[in-house]
Amino acid sequence: MSEFSAMNFCSDNVTGVAPEIMQALAEANHGTAWPYGNDDWTRKIEGQLAEIFERKVKAFPVATGTAANSLALATMCPPYGAVFAHEAAHVMVDECGAPEFYSGGAKLIPVAGQHGKLTPDGVAAAIARNRSTDPHQVPLAAISLTNATESGTVYRPDEVRAIAGIAKAEGLRVHMDGARFANAMAFLGVPAKAVTWEAGVDALSFGATKGGAMAAEMVVFFDDRLAESFAYRRMRGGHLVSKMRFVSAQLNAFLADGLWLKLARHANAMAQRLAQGLQRIPGARLAHPVEANELFVVLPAPVIKGLREAGAEFYDWKMTFLATEELNVIRLVTAWDTDPAKVARFLKVAGEVAAQAA
Amino acid sequence: MSEFSAMNFCSDNVTGVAPEIMQALAEANHGTAWPYGNDDWTRKIEGQLAEIFERKVKAFPVATGTAANSLALATMCPPYGAVFAHEAAHVMVDECGAPEFYSGGAKLIPVAGQHGKLTPDGVAAAIARNRSTDPHQVPLAAISLTNATESGTVYRPDEVRAIAGIAKAEGLRVHMDGARFANAMAFLGVPAKAVTWEAGVDALSFGATKGGAMAAEMVVFFDDRLAESFAYRRMRGGHLVSKMRFVSAQLNAFLADGLWLKLARHANAMAQRLAQGLQRIPGARLAHPVEANELFVVLPAPVIKGLREAGAEFYDWKMTFLATEELNVIRLVTAWDTDPAKVARFLKVAGEVAAQAA
Amino acid sequence: MSEFSAMNFCSDNVTGVAPEIMQALAEANHGTAWPYGNDDWTRKIEGQLAEIFERKVKAFPVATGTAANSLALATMCPPYGAVFAHEAAHVMVDECGAPEFYSGGAKLIPVAGQHGKLTPDGVAAAIARNRSTDPHQVPLAAISLTNATESGTVYRPDEVRAIAGIAKAEGLRVHMDGARFANAMAFLGVPAKAVTWEAGVDALSFGATKGGAMAAEMVVFFDDRLAESFAYRRMRGGHLVSKMRFVSAQLNAFLADGLWLKLARHANAMAQRLAQGLQRIPGARLAHPVEANELFVVLPAPVIKGLREAGAEFYDWKMTFLATEELNVIRLVTAWDTDPAKVARFLKVAGEVAAQAA
Amino acid sequence: MSEFSAMNFCSDNVTGVAPEIMQALAEANHGTAWPYGNDDWTRKIEGQLAEIFERKVKAFPVATGTAANSLALATMCPPYGAVFAHEAAHVMVDECGAPEFYSGGAKLIPVAGQHGKLTPDGVAAAIARNRSTDPHQVPLAAISLTNATESGTVYRPDEVRAIAGIAKAEGLRVHMDGARFANAMAFLGVPAKAVTWEAGVDALSFGATKGGAMAAEMVVFFDDRLAESFAYRRMRGGHLVSKMRFVSAQLNAFLADGLWLKLARHANAMAQRLAQGLQRIPGARLAHPVEANELFVVLPAPVIKGLREAGAEFYDWKMTFLATEELNVIRLVTAWDTDPAKVARFLKVAGEVAAQAA
Repeated sequence: MSEFSAMNFCSDNVTGVAPEIMQALAEANHGTAWPYGNDDWTRKIEGQLAEIFERKVKAFPVATGTAANSLALATMCPPYGAVFAHEAAHVMVDECGAPEFYSGGAKLIPVAGQHGKLTPDGVAAAIARNRSTDPHQVPLAAISLTNATESGTVYRPDEVRAIAGIAKAEGLRVHMDGARFANAMAFLGVPAKAVTWEAGVDALSFGATKGGAMAAEMVVFFDDRLAESFAYRRMRGGHLVSKMRFVSAQLNAFLADGLWLKLARHANAMAQRLAQGLQRIPGARLAHPVEANELFVVLPAPVIKGLREAGAEFYDWKMTFLATEELNVIRLVTAWDTDPAKVARFLKVAGEVAAQAA
Repeated sequence: MSEFSAMNFCSDNVTGVAPEIMQALAEANHGTAWPYGNDDWTRKIEGQLAEIFERKVKAFPVATGTAANSLALATMCPPYGAVFAHEAAHVMVDECGAPEFYSGGAKLIPVAGQHGKLTPDGVAAAIARNRSTDPHQVPLAAISLTNATESGTVYRPDEVRAIAGIAKAEGLRVHMDGARFANAMAFLGVPAKAVTWEAGVDALSFGATKGGAMAAEMVVFFDDRLAESFAYRRMRGGHLVSKMRFVSAQLNAFLADGLWLKLARHANAMAQRLAQGLQRIPGARLAHPVEANELFVVLPAPVIKGLREAGAEFYDWKMTFLATEELNVIRLVTAWDTDPAKVARFLKVAGEVAAQAA
Repeated sequence: MSEFSAMNFCSDNVTGVAPEIMQALAEANHGTAWPYGNDDWTRKIEGQLAEIFERKVKAFPVATGTAANSLALATMCPPYGAVFAHEAAHVMVDECGAPEFYSGGAKLIPVAGQHGKLTPDGVAAAIARNRSTDPHQVPLAAISLTNATESGTVYRPDEVRAIAGIAKAEGLRVHMDGARFANAMAFLGVPAKAVTWEAGVDALSFGATKGGAMAAEMVVFFDDRLAESFAYRRMRGGHLVSKMRFVSAQLNAFLADGLWLKLARHANAMAQRLAQGLQRIPGARLAHPVEANELFVVLPAPVIKGLREAGAEFYDWKMTFLATEELNVIRLVTAWDTDPAKVARFLKVAGEVAAQAA
Repeated sequence: MSEFSAMNFCSDNVTGVAPEIMQALAEANHGTAWPYGNDDWTRKIEGQLAEIFERKVKAFPVATGTAANSLALATMCPPYGAVFAHEAAHVMVDECGAPEFYSGGAKLIPVAGQHGKLTPDGVAAAIARNRSTDPHQVPLAAISLTNATESGTVYRPDEVRAIAGIAKAEGLRVHMDGARFANAMAFLGVPAKAVTWEAGVDALSFGATKGGAMAAEMVVFFDDRLAESFAYRRMRGGHLVSKMRFVSAQLNAFLADGLWLKLARHANAMAQRLAQGLQRIPGARLAHPVEANELFVVLPAPVIKGLREAGAEFYDWKMTFLATEELNVIRLVTAWDTDPAKVARFLKVAGEVAAQAA
């Protein structure tokens, strides 16, 4: 990949840092500040979040989404417990076992579901299959939902409420992996509380990195008791950044004046533009509804080849049930900085190649 | 603490980011880059280190010193093994059990030693006390040396060689916690290899954060085999930063053109100036030789009180054997940005208060 | 359950201890003996096993099957690795996460397969789905086969060889959970090596408890390197029994003069007798082939009710796809001491109830 | 060691099983019984203990002392916590890190103390040194006392109360390692409650193996809340013995009719006899008061040599501060089955060799 790619849709983490956040880092770089989060920038975060979520919360900045997820889950699930998550969830397949590590060996139980989403029925069935009072089986401790999902779809408030309700009735805690929470919120257009604590979420991994920050995420607790051990767990995991003001300053800027939503709206809009354009390509089909900033598109092989020859960058995606020799699936991710001109060019190339191939 | 303290000697992590490093971050913020370290900035680091250490190395950036130390130790020590370290070492008492966590439950065995240093005799005795072939006892796996030490002293090459020799003869691996490695090197004025791999060090936690970076450390392996599992361990610990170029750009700048040594030399020089000035205060005494950027000073209680009233900030230090009702111990830490004018003012205040008290 | 049940087919661990083994315990109870396995009884085991497996082995006694399995897997799989096993395997669903605990957080990946067995195709597909060189995914480390399976079926040598071959080609280690290895061997009638090391098995949990011992299992290593850390892991897990001679004496007796096979043959024969008899019941159907000492039988609900009223004890089994309101699935387990008269009575009652219900 | 040693004073785990306990095992071996502790033998234990401790308790049988200790500590100390214990405690130096393993990486902090005992002052000082509210330091969670100690001494009720009082005031839990609790109780002659729950002990590892059982220990909880996770932790550790009746039957017999105290009294009496006899040897000296069933004796080298030549077996003990070239320290352990004739012979030989050497 050239460092200055013309049409890079590989991921939202190939992007840089939003100017407002870069500016905040520069401004934070004056004088001395207490380390380890005893600084004004860090103190400000909970106030900002209280406004967004319309209630008091406990929040802890960390530098990576994997740290946020696995530390949050470790507060909810004992070493001998079980966590349900979608079979394609980041915590399940993309964190090299970090939740198992941070929990001290908990079991992650994969649950299937279309378009990256768990369903109330799927969760109820998974609970029924795994519920036990016999110590031979791990007790069920938590469920983790990803919003926006790994398939680019978004849970609605009532979907979260239904799943969380089933979980709560069973004594399970509810975690939301919000690495792309901003994209989900930008799509939903509801108050943040509607899809989190009001719907039964106990802790949220609220991501900023993919949304425009450099390396900054928050674990937001809606249940104070879960937060009790967090400071120790974070330190012990090596995630208490000493010059914390520089993580927190990113978060301050991200949360201020709705920047997080503004950046996410742009990413989502670019995804919609791609989706609409690609659906005009003969043979093209969306594998999942496009609701956030990720697209999974079935495309004729020559179109994929032609796009790559024209300099476009994106990943092939393993969805064997949709792919054939002539049709393949690719993933496209838009971001806070996606240039509309590049989207236009991508669609133009796709159209041209498709026409030639026809 | 005011965020813009006049005389803040609390720690080197109360400081901000060196301008050269801030500049490097700004420059890295253009276009797209592969995430997770597959970028030009990250690739550059091993070349820079090869020059500094005069040999090929494997190096992995992480964001915190605790992550660097505990991940490095986890590659050296099985879950059922033991690591020796100075009883006041950061890995022993300041990481909330991170080495125990990352190793999967290894035992850290404290070893005493004057001025924060292990000695060959002390290490030999500790080995003799703990050596066993009986599975009732944990097998000895590694030793961790801190350079510069937590007492502001510096191991010489022959000291490291002597200790590492004893360790190696016993089959132990040798780790060096170099959160302040730059300060040690600035003091020693020898080639970096002399106090690391040539002396028997297998892995070094090479810190940049305290030395002027924002949040950037490296684990440097001089033994390739130890590096084999590192990528998995780092990911699993949540320490694989997605927009890695922004960690690596800090390190590139820190290592380029000897910036790391230049910044450390300034910090060390300011410490020397403080040491010389304070020794003129009646009743003052240095608890440890001042070799890097930390001072531990016994001072009359009224002088300490007077300094604080004048706005100076620093920590009281627990060294009960040196302290009395009338004499107490404080820690002063200088840094890459310590203003000589503030040092002068600090010494002036100390002199005046001492004179009044006399 | 009455302690002296007439027709108890709940499990093979409701049974007592075979007289030969009880006798061996009494004989071992004379004089003093070195603790922790440095005794003649323990030393004898590897010789006995060498004869059975026709090669040198390393063997370690432990008291439970869960200890044997999870300690064996911990020698094969790093904390950040993955182990494949059948979705109904004991290691997967009946050990409260012991493999995760002993490995330090490894991921157990469930693989489906009819009648409790993995297939070469199933394993190959699972590997293909989970294989990765990216540190975001756990590296594949081992596969665990259960023989006899949890469904009462038995892997043939060529089945083990085919699966192990695929595993080995991928760099995976192969573990066999042989809690009922004796029952498998009694069924197969082949040399023990044919279904273990010759077929590619690296370590075997060789159970004696269910087969007639009090509390005694062995971890048998066919690859010496895996055994290197075992003594430490066992001690650390609290599984180094101090008066080890009393575990080893059980194993000595179990292995001597083919007692293990003789007891297993009886158990298997009783299972066959039950299987043949129950198949004559109208509506009855075997859910799995009966090859070892467990039967899973679909029976009309009134028959089940009638058997229980007559004093028979057994578990209902969750196999929702076979069960209806009128037909249910039960599990019957025979053992080394199953009384043929009780089998006859069970079948007689079943026949009578079925006739009445018709 | 011959298996039928004439004068074996190596340990109390070189002994066999008391006849009453062997008998109980034989009696338990009739008919079927529910596995995993759902049997009459296991149910009986809590009633027996309630009588001994004069209150309701929760109790869980396990097969080894290391399992009992480390599982008990794991219920008291989070993965990120610290446990204090004597620097020579079994949990500290003889369990290959089992407490670290079971807790998930807790820190064991060694505390010094004469004759194997912690003192209120020593504990208070250790707490003062390690107390912190900063997440850089592990929070203090528990203290473990060994009674009888590893030095053959016994904590009195008021000693336990004083230490537990300090611990409780700091929010710490109190564990007692009672691998030789019977020997302590036989020495003290007070009600069991006086040195346990009345004195502030929350959980006791109550050993039977050294006292005459085959392999049987109990974790006794005086605080029900600690017991909540125990069943899961025990299963996950592989310590839920399937044919549990055979562990519990040992415990039933051990606790019945004061057998445990009777056996311990004999062991203690034999230790006293040895102590009195050896003190008459010129140059002999007891390194610790003899209160339970272990002696640590400084003896002239020729006496030690002579005893060994006469067939006596015992361990040399590392107590370098007491040993010289001419005087060495040995450990002698008596047991429930120590033959007075062998004690007499041992003393006779020692006297003769000493006379010759003089």
